[in-house]
Amino acid sequence: MTVKAPSSLDELMAALRCLPGVGPKSAQRMAYHLLQRDQPGAARLSGALRIALDRIRHCDKCNSFSEAALCELCASARRDAGLLCVVESPADLLMVEQTQSYGGMYFVLAGVLSPLDGIGPKEIHLDRLLKRATDGVVREVVLATNFTAEGEATAHYAGELLLARGIKVTRIARGLPVGGELDHVDAGTLAQAVIERRAV
Amino acid sequence: MTVKAPSSLDELMAALRCLPGVGPKSAQRMAYHLLQRDQPGAARLSGALRIALDRIRHCDKCNSFSEAALCELCASARRDAGLLCVVESPADLLMVEQTQSYGGMYFVLAGVLSPLDGIGPKEIHLDRLLKRATDGVVREVVLATNFTAEGEATAHYAGELLLARGIKVTRIARGLPVGGELDHVDAGTLAQAVIERRAV
Repeated sequence: MTVKAPSSLDELMAALRCLPGVGPKSAQRMAYHLLQRDQPGAARLSGALRIALDRIRHCDKCNSFSEAALCELCASARRDAGLLCVVESPADLLMVEQTQSYGGMYFVLAGVLSPLDGIGPKEIHLDRLLKRATDGVVREVVLATNFTAEGEATAHYAGELLLARGIKVTRIARGLPVGGELDHVDAGTLAQAVIERRAV
Repeated sequence: MTVKAPSSLDELMAALRCLPGVGPKSAQRMAYHLLQRDQPGAARLSGALRIALDRIRHCDKCNSFSEAALCELCASARRDAGLLCVVESPADLLMVEQTQSYGGMYFVLAGVLSPLDGIGPKEIHLDRLLKRATDGVVREVVLATNFTAEGEATAHYAGELLLARGIKVTRIARGLPVGGELDHVDAGTLAQAVIERRAV
């Protein structure tokens, strides 16, 4: 007879696998670590998950995570309300914010177009984006979806709709990474960097 | 003004860092993933942590994790009660069990000797091990602590005490890993494999 872990420990290991990048081995290590060495940490994590699930909602204006009806950013008077950056997820919004290179507003799509999965313009709230972008204050929409097939398709589709309504639309630049070397970059990226070269 | 995440999201990211191997970047990715894509998973994890903390205790006999006073293994009549394997942690017990090469009982120390950290024989429950090993049924103690400095010291110390009480003591083998090649193994391991060579 091989002995199994107690059932509540088994369930904890299974539950830990909902975390991205956590497989059976990591989940086992995490569960034993928490119970053996960090029970206060486990209690804190349990509480933090419950409280975050209770309190976090989507901002009415930008659709990002917020505890209030309007997020801190949408409620701020110190941002440029004429610039609207469109991203795929709240995590992407945070990535752009952390660059400290952008001072405008955001709109977070509910994902990207993926017709094969039944995800169309309505599912990702493109109608809300159009309404938001045509409020008379926004003068430029910066499309910052990922450079994946779906992200590109979404940017293209949203761009066409916005252009048809007379709004200036831009796309974040593709090219070599900062500090990047030509022989370390894939051919597709290098090709785009050549095609989208800019005057110095 | 750079915008921060809502405070309950911040707290969730901080709490996730109690997991081994999770730094700030992973914690951020995990928190956003749970809230954006897997709220049921987050609720399940919160509940599983709470229930495990409530229910998991240490087995009275072997000191491993258990939901009852005696763990499934110690309560089993199908194990060899004459063999007692000593490990450092419940996770190590599970590792030995998963080899399916051992059919005896276990004793889980509460860590290893570490005099500089003030962890002596009493703190790791060596007195309980001696009592357990001298119950008249145990005929051999297999020391399976890690081959670290602390694990070796603990095995040596426990071994001396057990031998003095007339109990047969063995140590799990050191050597090359199964499928291991000589030129991929460190010199110390290879030296031990030579010293501890066995007749064929």
